[in-house]
Amino acid sequence: MPVGNKKLPEEKVFKDPVHRYIHISDELIWDLVGTKEFQRLRRVRQLGTTFLTFHGAEHTRFNHSLGVYEIMRRIIEVFEGRPHWNGNEGLLCLSAALLHDIGHGPFSHSFEKVFNTDHEEWTRHIILGDTEVNTVLRRMGEDFPQQVADVIEKTHPNKLIVSMISSQIDADRMDYLQRDAFYTGVSYGHFDMERILRVMRPTEDQVVIKATGMHAVEDYIMSRYQMYWQVYFHPVTRSAEVILTKILQRVKDLKNEEYPFKYPPHHFESFFRGAITLEDYLDLDESVAMYYFLMWQKEEDAILQDLCRRFMNRRLFKYVEFDQHFMMNEWLRLQQLFADLGVDPAYYLVVDSSSDLPYDFYRPGEEEDRVPIHLLMPDRRLRELSRESDVVEAISGKKRTDHKLYYPSEVLEEPGQEDTKQQIKDILHLKLGKVER
Amino acid sequence: MPVGNKKLPEEKVFKDPVHRYIHISDELIWDLVGTKEFQRLRRVRQLGTTFLTFHGAEHTRFNHSLGVYEIMRRIIEVFEGRPHWNGNEGLLCLSAALLHDIGHGPFSHSFEKVFNTDHEEWTRHIILGDTEVNTVLRRMGEDFPQQVADVIEKTHPNKLIVSMISSQIDADRMDYLQRDAFYTGVSYGHFDMERILRVMRPTEDQVVIKATGMHAVEDYIMSRYQMYWQVYFHPVTRSAEVILTKILQRVKDLKNEEYPFKYPPHHFESFFRGAITLEDYLDLDESVAMYYFLMWQKEEDAILQDLCRRFMNRRLFKYVEFDQHFMMNEWLRLQQLFADLGVDPAYYLVVDSSSDLPYDFYRPGEEEDRVPIHLLMPDRRLRELSRESDVVEAISGKKRTDHKLYYPSEVLEEPGQEDTKQQIKDILHLKLGKVER
Amino acid sequence: MPVGNKKLPEEKVFKDPVHRYIHISDELIWDLVGTKEFQRLRRVRQLGTTFLTFHGAEHTRFNHSLGVYEIMRRIIEVFEGRPHWNGNEGLLCLSAALLHDIGHGPFSHSFEKVFNTDHEEWTRHIILGDTEVNTVLRRMGEDFPQQVADVIEKTHPNKLIVSMISSQIDADRMDYLQRDAFYTGVSYGHFDMERILRVMRPTEDQVVIKATGMHAVEDYIMSRYQMYWQVYFHPVTRSAEVILTKILQRVKDLKNEEYPFKYPPHHFESFFRGAITLEDYLDLDESVAMYYFLMWQKEEDAILQDLCRRFMNRRLFKYVEFDQHFMMNEWLRLQQLFADLGVDPAYYLVVDSSSDLPYDFYRPGEEEDRVPIHLLMPDRRLRELSRESDVVEAISGKKRTDHKLYYPSEVLEEPGQEDTKQQIKDILHLKLGKVER
Amino acid sequence: MPVGNKKLPEEKVFKDPVHRYIHISDELIWDLVGTKEFQRLRRVRQLGTTFLTFHGAEHTRFNHSLGVYEIMRRIIEVFEGRPHWNGNEGLLCLSAALLHDIGHGPFSHSFEKVFNTDHEEWTRHIILGDTEVNTVLRRMGEDFPQQVADVIEKTHPNKLIVSMISSQIDADRMDYLQRDAFYTGVSYGHFDMERILRVMRPTEDQVVIKATGMHAVEDYIMSRYQMYWQVYFHPVTRSAEVILTKILQRVKDLKNEEYPFKYPPHHFESFFRGAITLEDYLDLDESVAMYYFLMWQKEEDAILQDLCRRFMNRRLFKYVEFDQHFMMNEWLRLQQLFADLGVDPAYYLVVDSSSDLPYDFYRPGEEEDRVPIHLLMPDRRLRELSRESDVVEAISGKKRTDHKLYYPSEVLEEPGQEDTKQQIKDILHLKLGKVER
Repeated sequence: MPVGNKKLPEEKVFKDPVHRYIHISDELIWDLVGTKEFQRLRRVRQLGTTFLTFHGAEHTRFNHSLGVYEIMRRIIEVFEGRPHWNGNEGLLCLSAALLHDIGHGPFSHSFEKVFNTDHEEWTRHIILGDTEVNTVLRRMGEDFPQQVADVIEKTHPNKLIVSMISSQIDADRMDYLQRDAFYTGVSYGHFDMERILRVMRPTEDQVVIKATGMHAVEDYIMSRYQMYWQVYFHPVTRSAEVILTKILQRVKDLKNEEYPFKYPPHHFESFFRGAITLEDYLDLDESVAMYYFLMWQKEEDAILQDLCRRFMNRRLFKYVEFDQHFMMNEWLRLQQLFADLGVDPAYYLVVDSSSDLPYDFYRPGEEEDRVPIHLLMPDRRLRELSRESDVVEAISGKKRTDHKLYYPSEVLEEPGQEDTKQQIKDILHLKLGKVER
Repeated sequence: MPVGNKKLPEEKVFKDPVHRYIHISDELIWDLVGTKEFQRLRRVRQLGTTFLTFHGAEHTRFNHSLGVYEIMRRIIEVFEGRPHWNGNEGLLCLSAALLHDIGHGPFSHSFEKVFNTDHEEWTRHIILGDTEVNTVLRRMGEDFPQQVADVIEKTHPNKLIVSMISSQIDADRMDYLQRDAFYTGVSYGHFDMERILRVMRPTEDQVVIKATGMHAVEDYIMSRYQMYWQVYFHPVTRSAEVILTKILQRVKDLKNEEYPFKYPPHHFESFFRGAITLEDYLDLDESVAMYYFLMWQKEEDAILQDLCRRFMNRRLFKYVEFDQHFMMNEWLRLQQLFADLGVDPAYYLVVDSSSDLPYDFYRPGEEEDRVPIHLLMPDRRLRELSRESDVVEAISGKKRTDHKLYYPSEVLEEPGQEDTKQQIKDILHLKLGKVER
Repeated sequence: MPVGNKKLPEEKVFKDPVHRYIHISDELIWDLVGTKEFQRLRRVRQLGTTFLTFHGAEHTRFNHSLGVYEIMRRIIEVFEGRPHWNGNEGLLCLSAALLHDIGHGPFSHSFEKVFNTDHEEWTRHIILGDTEVNTVLRRMGEDFPQQVADVIEKTHPNKLIVSMISSQIDADRMDYLQRDAFYTGVSYGHFDMERILRVMRPTEDQVVIKATGMHAVEDYIMSRYQMYWQVYFHPVTRSAEVILTKILQRVKDLKNEEYPFKYPPHHFESFFRGAITLEDYLDLDESVAMYYFLMWQKEEDAILQDLCRRFMNRRLFKYVEFDQHFMMNEWLRLQQLFADLGVDPAYYLVVDSSSDLPYDFYRPGEEEDRVPIHLLMPDRRLRELSRESDVVEAISGKKRTDHKLYYPSEVLEEPGQEDTKQQIKDILHLKLGKVER
Repeated sequence: MPVGNKKLPEEKVFKDPVHRYIHISDELIWDLVGTKEFQRLRRVRQLGTTFLTFHGAEHTRFNHSLGVYEIMRRIIEVFEGRPHWNGNEGLLCLSAALLHDIGHGPFSHSFEKVFNTDHEEWTRHIILGDTEVNTVLRRMGEDFPQQVADVIEKTHPNKLIVSMISSQIDADRMDYLQRDAFYTGVSYGHFDMERILRVMRPTEDQVVIKATGMHAVEDYIMSRYQMYWQVYFHPVTRSAEVILTKILQRVKDLKNEEYPFKYPPHHFESFFRGAITLEDYLDLDESVAMYYFLMWQKEEDAILQDLCRRFMNRRLFKYVEFDQHFMMNEWLRLQQLFADLGVDPAYYLVVDSSSDLPYDFYRPGEEEDRVPIHLLMPDRRLRELSRESDVVEAISGKKRTDHKLYYPSEVLEEPGQEDTKQQIKDILHLKLGKVER
């Protein structure tokens, strides 16, 4: 065990609705949970704008991070005493599990798009920089923060440990599938984790699954597949995401134009400059972001005001499929027609692709940095899952990209310029989907 | 049915993790959900500071309000066609159920204490004032908003309807017990609501329960009892509440002293003046409150800074039982000793009583405005529940008040002034409880 | 509504662990449940020998039949008032749902194999013959029993009704998947039935599914697939089934040889003669069958005694895969070697194929009598499910047949005739599986 | 660890719907499960006639016995390494847990009443006699079977171990409450077992509960209370039990009268003689009992025939409360009136008392042989639960006895002897309850 760890005098538990209890017996872990950087995760929702689609999904990354820690703790329990498993690595695994999302900010996806930030980079800064997290980690040794960062970044030489937290069947995914299913209330996302934990085996460079557990893993993959279509790629969520991104875009554009804000975006200054300090990054949590969106409902700028009101009051964009049947001239024509209506297509006619999302279903061989799932056959050889399972093969071959065109349907319903509106409707007509639920 | 209601062309559903689905078929209800005042409930947590004790409890009043609506919908389904039930009142009941908490602000309990606001009064203002909610309601008739407000305020002449939303076994409580149990993850809070709905019967002036359902109601009362002790009166939650109240108190005091805020409390101005406008009230949601608490971590004032840091980073007060064994001279002495340490007892030595909390278990005859539960006996007479059920009688006689003294234990651990600290410890010694979980 | 039905004065409910409550408001249904033929289903287990693999699976066909009735009741609720749905057919549907398995005897699969009985034929006899069931049904009209029988036999002219109880997504399957999952305790078998019910639509000749519900149906198909492999085709269950079949075979053979039974198979007499009366058929329930198996443990005949002891005390056969790698000469040689050991291969060397089982996963176009699942597309056209869903297509193309060779491993472990045993082991060697769990 | 135990090469698991998995790693336990005496428990239902009230309750004592074993295994895990706990006693505890009900026969309650058998005595005989169970146990040492029997009989000197399996909060009760709730489908019976296990502590002579777990134990007691009234004392179940007892009584009486049975009660012979051998006892399982009840539906004796038909086809007796308002002369008069109708009151007018049932709720001090629940207070003293908990005190003071008079209501509905029937009705009139559900 790393120098410097102490067991707590008595195990502490958190009540958790997904795993029932989260057990902490190491002082290191307890103290990491108490740092202000970790407590900040209480102010960053796990699923961003999804709460506008599934009202139950109001849970935060704090919630999820404890869950990943707990699953890691159980995996380690299963590995204890088995070949290839070095018990001394336990705290490293647990710390990496707990902290793997520490760099996330509010609505990461949109912020990263507009401001070119990268939450993985910030995870690194928080672990290695001048933070309470770093101070606690260094008690395990000067090198310990670096090791934790390396495991999270998947550059750590111990590939087994890396695969426990980042692979196609890791503690992270097993927690979020179950947790997101629990809070959204959907029927998918359930699988027999207890069974999967029982058939996980450490090997030299990755976690593998005993072949007798194949059906449990199939079920897990199927859950992933269903969750992606039913929850993660939900078009209403993406509509809210589109609006959010355009709010940030508008603020950035207004800043460039030196627009005189009534409620100036102080917390965004260093984001505009592209020179964000650690303190600035940590200061901008979801409460602060929401504060600005609330305030900007009262700005003079019509676009910013409108987009913020839409976001706060859930008046989202509708969409049509933007697929191969859409012709380029239709697309250009639409932009012109919107402009004719006085509606700026740069903010109000937005193509969104599901492939932009940080989720995927199982695709062996396509992601360079995630090891695929290997089955440990009775003859001790390894077989990649989709070669054994027809169902997984079918899913892994499925297209996961779709493109949708989002727009505010209200502009078509108001009176005036009927002819232009009719032309827009004609183009959108056959492709019409619905955002309402 | 009130004039002006239309059925939606197709029923809409929300996925809900507690009731599985929430069904909306009335345009009125759908439009109320879409108002900005109702959407604002997404920014007010249902259980205030409880998320600091049970990390799962991050759900909002939006979530709960939909749940109360859904239970009301099911009660109405059961009542349909029975004597004493007037089908035309359905929309009134549903609207009141949906809107019963619309006046809640962030951390209502603390705000009400410090600023003498009253969320019930604000509910009335929002329903009757110049709001989107009012506009939508008026489509049912000029008088409709007033009727909805009267039902919520329990002044409506139809006592049956009032009892459906405010009694000892109403749609409100049945939702929050189940919902809070679900999100906290505790094992209590479950009861057989489907059975209770089946045995509810309308009478002229209240909902009663068929005597055959007594055991299901006993179970519900027992759930309430357990939830109050395990969740609602949890000492860690109350510790956070104490700190929050003291933050507001400090801000108010600083304002009176004309302290030069770095981050002036603009949103609190009309609260200080005691002349809050509807717009101001609606503007101050939980994101905004949190924004200020975050900012004030950087104020010069040591007390405000410290209290805000404690709240944001969950560095809570510890407590001792403050009961009849505590002598007045000990109490005065403690205040003096804290002052000697330079710690202002007005902010750092706080007595909190569970009887202040807006929860109770079943106490027939004590609350003037909530009808107790009556059983409908086979001979058609009514019997108050605690006269039939020994278990309920036992619970309803239980003391529900306890008093705790909260204080920052850290001041006793730092070096210096050992003698004073020892004297404090001596007084607190035998009464020591623990806040950590 | 058919002449002769009366509503019960008050709805009756059964508590059901799968559907929570089963609601009965028709006197007809209540009286059918009370017939002795229906009560007899309490003495026929739903899953035959599966309880020897999953000890929880002790539930009976009584249990399942009520569940199918309840799902049918809910489907009818959804259909009420829709085009193509004739409310007068409700009772016919409910009766057919309740009685669809009334002809099942104990361990139907084995009995049908050995005695050429057919539970569907007996269902017809019980509905149309001189039974309490028939008497109750005739109250609805002379023709009513025939109509119920026709719906169950899928020959009724109303194809919509037939598809409600016998199609690829009918009340029967939706109940047994959930019920069998519940009682076995496996994690599979769950799907969002409430959602599926909401998207079911009646058409002229079948139930179809609104395209928006495709993912819920995919999930249902995936559950079926998992249940078949994990539960219905479980090799331990099949091993018990093999032994049971051989017990019946042995009794039949002994009867033909005029073996002097200590415990003569009175209840089997008409089965031997192939001239079973309705009374005889109804008399032979699972208690009676078990009584004989218990008694025959004390018969002189070594084979019958041994097989019965194996079945009662769960000393099952082991198995090897009997696949294309098995050569005919190995097979013949094995039979000879078993005979050399004095072990009759006719009873102790048994090939069992999963394709014999009355379960399948989804295979559109292959079963002449079950309509495949059709999606109702937004343009009102119908599309067969596997053409829309890659996952379903993948599953429906999967092989579902496997063959296993069952044998008593104990004979290889006793001392003596080592050489013969070694030869047997050599043949079985590479194909060895295990029956123990 | 006792000499002679071996760990299995690999842990075996059973899928269990209540505890998810049952884990077996000792060869001893595995072999005990495989004995024919333990397998026989598959043919004895856990809840006797309850399946006639709650159709889901078809589970057997096999099912429950595995569950008690599993809970014991988890208790031992918690105790490992704590003071007062001797790890060597583990297998003794596990064996006693697994075998504690091995002496149960079919419908034990009725058989014990009529034939004066005692399942606890038979448990002893099976463990100590010439059985497979005894053979397996003796591998742990000659004395081991005796020790197991002593633990089950509560005479073992190690009172801690005895209390783990027989006290007011033992492995037996914790399993059956949860299991019976699961299979009946009622909402009661749930409590936070994981929490209770975490707060259980071994002391010198009993298991105690840390005071911090008091609310979880209150909830457990409340579950017991609800289960007793809702399930175990259910009047329909007792009606079936009454009929069953009267069947056995009638057979015994006919035997004494040398009635010429068409289907002679061979399996009951030694029960009549009061000299039951171990073999006879083990041979009479529930399949055999049911076989006879089925056959006796065809006996000439009108009473036996009628009672058996009632039992098999669920045509149960109705009841009235037989309480202090019932006067002795009414009671005698009723018997006479039944006799006048030709209905033998000895079989058809039966008083049943709930206090006869082998269940109770918590009553400290009343059962000499079950230790009450003690809380371990922070100051290390022990306090009996009902002195700390008002709710438990309320429940433990509740009357648990009620008396009901069961009778066949059909005899009052047939035409003829109207006057006599009217007199009966007059007596029963005001006391009328209903058996139907």
